[in-house]
Amino acid sequence: MKRIGVFTSGGDAPGMNAAIRAVVRQAYALGLEVIGIRRGYAGMIQGEMVPLGVRDVANILQRGGTILLTARSQEFLTEEGRAKAAEKLKAAGIEGLVAIGGDGTFRGAMRLLEEHKIPVVGVPGTIDNDLYGTDYTVGFDTAVNTALEAIDRIRDTAASHERVFFIEVMGRDSGFIALDVGLAGGAEVIAVPEEPVDPRAIAEGLLESLRRGKSSSIVVVAEGAYPGGAAGLLAAIREHVPVEARVTVLGHIQRGGSPTAKDRILACRWGAGAVEAWAGGTSGVLGGVVVGEVELTPLKEAVERKKDINRTLLALSRVLAL
Amino acid sequence: MKRIGVFTSGGDAPGMNAAIRAVVRQAYALGLEVIGIRRGYAGMIQGEMVPLGVRDVANILQRGGTILLTARSQEFLTEEGRAKAAEKLKAAGIEGLVAIGGDGTFRGAMRLLEEHKIPVVGVPGTIDNDLYGTDYTVGFDTAVNTALEAIDRIRDTAASHERVFFIEVMGRDSGFIALDVGLAGGAEVIAVPEEPVDPRAIAEGLLESLRRGKSSSIVVVAEGAYPGGAAGLLAAIREHVPVEARVTVLGHIQRGGSPTAKDRILACRWGAGAVEAWAGGTSGVLGGVVVGEVELTPLKEAVERKKDINRTLLALSRVLAL
Amino acid sequence: MKRIGVFTSGGDAPGMNAAIRAVVRQAYALGLEVIGIRRGYAGMIQGEMVPLGVRDVANILQRGGTILLTARSQEFLTEEGRAKAAEKLKAAGIEGLVAIGGDGTFRGAMRLLEEHKIPVVGVPGTIDNDLYGTDYTVGFDTAVNTALEAIDRIRDTAASHERVFFIEVMGRDSGFIALDVGLAGGAEVIAVPEEPVDPRAIAEGLLESLRRGKSSSIVVVAEGAYPGGAAGLLAAIREHVPVEARVTVLGHIQRGGSPTAKDRILACRWGAGAVEAWAGGTSGVLGGVVVGEVELTPLKEAVERKKDINRTLLALSRVLAL
Amino acid sequence: MKRIGVFTSGGDAPGMNAAIRAVVRQAYALGLEVIGIRRGYAGMIQGEMVPLGVRDVANILQRGGTILLTARSQEFLTEEGRAKAAEKLKAAGIEGLVAIGGDGTFRGAMRLLEEHKIPVVGVPGTIDNDLYGTDYTVGFDTAVNTALEAIDRIRDTAASHERVFFIEVMGRDSGFIALDVGLAGGAEVIAVPEEPVDPRAIAEGLLESLRRGKSSSIVVVAEGAYPGGAAGLLAAIREHVPVEARVTVLGHIQRGGSPTAKDRILACRWGAGAVEAWAGGTSGVLGGVVVGEVELTPLKEAVERKKDINRTLLALSRVLAL
Repeated sequence: MKRIGVFTSGGDAPGMNAAIRAVVRQAYALGLEVIGIRRGYAGMIQGEMVPLGVRDVANILQRGGTILLTARSQEFLTEEGRAKAAEKLKAAGIEGLVAIGGDGTFRGAMRLLEEHKIPVVGVPGTIDNDLYGTDYTVGFDTAVNTALEAIDRIRDTAASHERVFFIEVMGRDSGFIALDVGLAGGAEVIAVPEEPVDPRAIAEGLLESLRRGKSSSIVVVAEGAYPGGAAGLLAAIREHVPVEARVTVLGHIQRGGSPTAKDRILACRWGAGAVEAWAGGTSGVLGGVVVGEVELTPLKEAVERKKDINRTLLALSRVLAL
Repeated sequence: MKRIGVFTSGGDAPGMNAAIRAVVRQAYALGLEVIGIRRGYAGMIQGEMVPLGVRDVANILQRGGTILLTARSQEFLTEEGRAKAAEKLKAAGIEGLVAIGGDGTFRGAMRLLEEHKIPVVGVPGTIDNDLYGTDYTVGFDTAVNTALEAIDRIRDTAASHERVFFIEVMGRDSGFIALDVGLAGGAEVIAVPEEPVDPRAIAEGLLESLRRGKSSSIVVVAEGAYPGGAAGLLAAIREHVPVEARVTVLGHIQRGGSPTAKDRILACRWGAGAVEAWAGGTSGVLGGVVVGEVELTPLKEAVERKKDINRTLLALSRVLAL
Repeated sequence: MKRIGVFTSGGDAPGMNAAIRAVVRQAYALGLEVIGIRRGYAGMIQGEMVPLGVRDVANILQRGGTILLTARSQEFLTEEGRAKAAEKLKAAGIEGLVAIGGDGTFRGAMRLLEEHKIPVVGVPGTIDNDLYGTDYTVGFDTAVNTALEAIDRIRDTAASHERVFFIEVMGRDSGFIALDVGLAGGAEVIAVPEEPVDPRAIAEGLLESLRRGKSSSIVVVAEGAYPGGAAGLLAAIREHVPVEARVTVLGHIQRGGSPTAKDRILACRWGAGAVEAWAGGTSGVLGGVVVGEVELTPLKEAVERKKDINRTLLALSRVLAL
Repeated sequence: MKRIGVFTSGGDAPGMNAAIRAVVRQAYALGLEVIGIRRGYAGMIQGEMVPLGVRDVANILQRGGTILLTARSQEFLTEEGRAKAAEKLKAAGIEGLVAIGGDGTFRGAMRLLEEHKIPVVGVPGTIDNDLYGTDYTVGFDTAVNTALEAIDRIRDTAASHERVFFIEVMGRDSGFIALDVGLAGGAEVIAVPEEPVDPRAIAEGLLESLRRGKSSSIVVVAEGAYPGGAAGLLAAIREHVPVEARVTVLGHIQRGGSPTAKDRILACRWGAGAVEAWAGGTSGVLGGVVVGEVELTPLKEAVERKKDINRTLLALSRVLAL
């Protein structure tokens, strides 16, 4: 019986467990054995492996986090580290890998493929949605809805106290979360790394809002949009105009929680699809959705190209936040 | 200044308010005036109209239901009824309409256009997602997540008592909600109207599940999948096999609640897009998303053709629910 | 080392897992061993027992349902059944029991104590809150909040369609859930078993509401308030007045889900308290809260006396639902 | 017809709207007129007043924030400010006040009563729960559950990455939120202002946890427990032991959101009770619950005495977080 390995790596994302379940059960349907590798590349180097049967992944579909744990590994960045990992895989009889993670995960996977001919298929799992080759990533929809719920709550206070709030959301050096949350949350301003952020212009916009009779405002700031994040942006603005505002950094609540329907469904499709692709002889690709259709993108392209935000939505947010 | 009307009709759906807000604010940006028509076609016939300014739609983005109310109208199904409605619109100086609703709403809108030359653009707003010409409808994502949360709760009890649960979800004569909820909720069986439902086969599947060591099971039943819904299906199954199961009909909780990020974003895009389309001279169409791209579909096609469920997902659900 | 058993019985309730965790960890702190008995009294008769260590109850505090499973047992209602159960307990070296459940659970526990001298302490765990000797039970607060969220959703639709909704909530033959949910949900009418329900008076109240300009209404009906529940009550009303209304039976969603803070805290206190009481030589009692103070109530009293609802709240609900 | 005023002041809290609704409707039932005073004491000085009828408070029961807005007022801290406010009240024919807020609100109310003989009754509304004379305050239960949900999410990440998280919760100089959230969230450490916080002891506890096999830990820190809050405490700990940990400050999400059932019910009871008390000739008191019974506490006592946390719970949290 052929044997594949599955692991999660990088920051955890809601839906990773759903993807693990899909990998295991699809493999079972195709007559493959599955080995779970714990703690990502760090555990791969240590040979931390557990067989995963159909019942081992029962009741995890709805759980946040990852039962396989995740970690960052310095050692894997070295050639020796990767050689050790490849040895452990071979010793365990693993003939292929399903890698669940983001950017960094797939850079590593590409190296394993190039240097050690270990066929790997990727499943996009990161809340940041910053992967080329797929419109969405597993975990993004949950993170957006969690941040949105937080903003809905904060708006209660903003409205009651007639205050301006600067809310920092995650996204590393991309603005996907900020854009969706800002549009859906009715933010007056959305600051993203993909567009220049002009403190003076924002200050004037907020004052203009005030003049139009809006007594409270929400500014959504992607963590990578400005040096120092939301607090840094507010400080820069206050050099121009004495705007009074509160800052809230949503932080790690955006990573956890039970995945939304969409994230679970993507995880089911891509997890199962990765096993099918591998069984069909395809590797070195990332399963994803491009304009609605499931497509496979070469890992190389996925990590080297940069996906852009939908700038139409950004323009729309300005029209709607009157 | 040109003047357009906006109304909601048919069953209410989360995100309708977000669409109303987008219509009003996009119209403002384009220099158009907006009149809100209350209680759908019934109110149109009665001339129940209120001007909607930019601030009138503040703070509704996150609210379920519809501030314009909705109703069903027998009178509008008659030629006289529609003539009265057209008169009221003309008397109010309304030169175009944005209709937010489903199937029935757009059938009515098409008649208004054909018989009275009132240009109308549609925004898909229904939890059922049963509209041709768009992959999604405003309200569907929220309904699916609400039903999913309910199933997660019920699974706690199903697992603790080692019981089988039959859960009936909405969807009229389509299985979109059932399919997504079933896949995301890890249902053992998903019964949809688009596929034949065989009580005997389901019974055998449940027994087989039991033999494999699964002590509890969830069967998701679309309301239109079997005569009598979930209870009817269970009764039919029990004619073959004495399966013990509980029935829960999720009912109207699926219609309400604060819309998800996705539903708000679709509502923002399509509400604004409908106004733009109308201002650009287009009418008789429905704004929607087809394989990821925003497209306009003739209303006639939207109401006459039938959108199919994704049968790949149905097959996948069987592989994963081991 | 002394050894105690813990089990859950009757309907599952959110917070039961939190109580199991508290029992195990408090026992550890006192130097006692804990055996988990699966499937309530049914499992006790079969000798289904597992040792529970401190780490076995990690990560269950927030989970709905019960990891020890629950079941109803006909055999335990017989003297022979109870004798078998007592034998199994003795064979396993179990010198005391913590019983987590409701009314029926404690009737059984009392018999074990009387007939077989097995000292038992009870932890109130039922969503119905129908236990004398404690103001609250573990699971009640979660059930009330789940039902309330459902009613908030339904109110969106009720308001948008200007409809009357009859919503049936759980509670067996008590009205605790109905009363709290009705007051917190702004219900126009709350029908509970503790008060006579007059269909004609309700009909008149709804019409009066309508006349005062309230276009939608919510009627909360405890399942035991009227023969046939919410549907039965509506039918009876319609014999007097042609009220148009929808019926929703919330059903099993009220039993599941992650427990609220309050239910977790009560479970922590009472689970730990039960072990302490037993270790201190007390048994045949139920730990609970009476007017804010933790008190122990004899099991006999707890199951034989009937706790009344707070009728002041019922009167208040009528004043506030104008 | 006699006329009373109602206002909210200080930080907003979920359930304030439910209290306003109860005041208005109970007043109606007793034949009193209600004037809403906007923006707390600041608005009182400016005479910002609106009549509140029974329908003006429809559909606010479930909303976070306060429809009457809230503000802090420096002017009211002066004798002249309070004299102006008293004049405005008299000019508007207001013969009594219901004040909804916390500590600062009631200090102000007492002054109005002492200096200007304006009879006032207080409703405890603050998420901090730091008011003597009542076991709970309106908003506390919601804040605790919101923070708990956030911690449940963060625990997913903490467990997946095997990390320690320091989570800062609100509470000003009290530890009520921290204690309840910490116990319900299974925190390994709870730092509150009411107890000395020893960085070295915490460091040792975390290391001990690690040695016992717990790979992730949650430390809940009340904002007033240590200089610099959670970040300050972590820095102090790291002077002793190189603990690696992430810090999350939950911030303003704890203030908003739809109130829980409990907060709505307390708001209903106390809002109505305040009007009844005033109508019955009582004033200068705060309505609240002490060991389960509704009691009135002199405002003076309420603001001058300090309510203590339940230290038994703190000890219990240490036993349970093994």
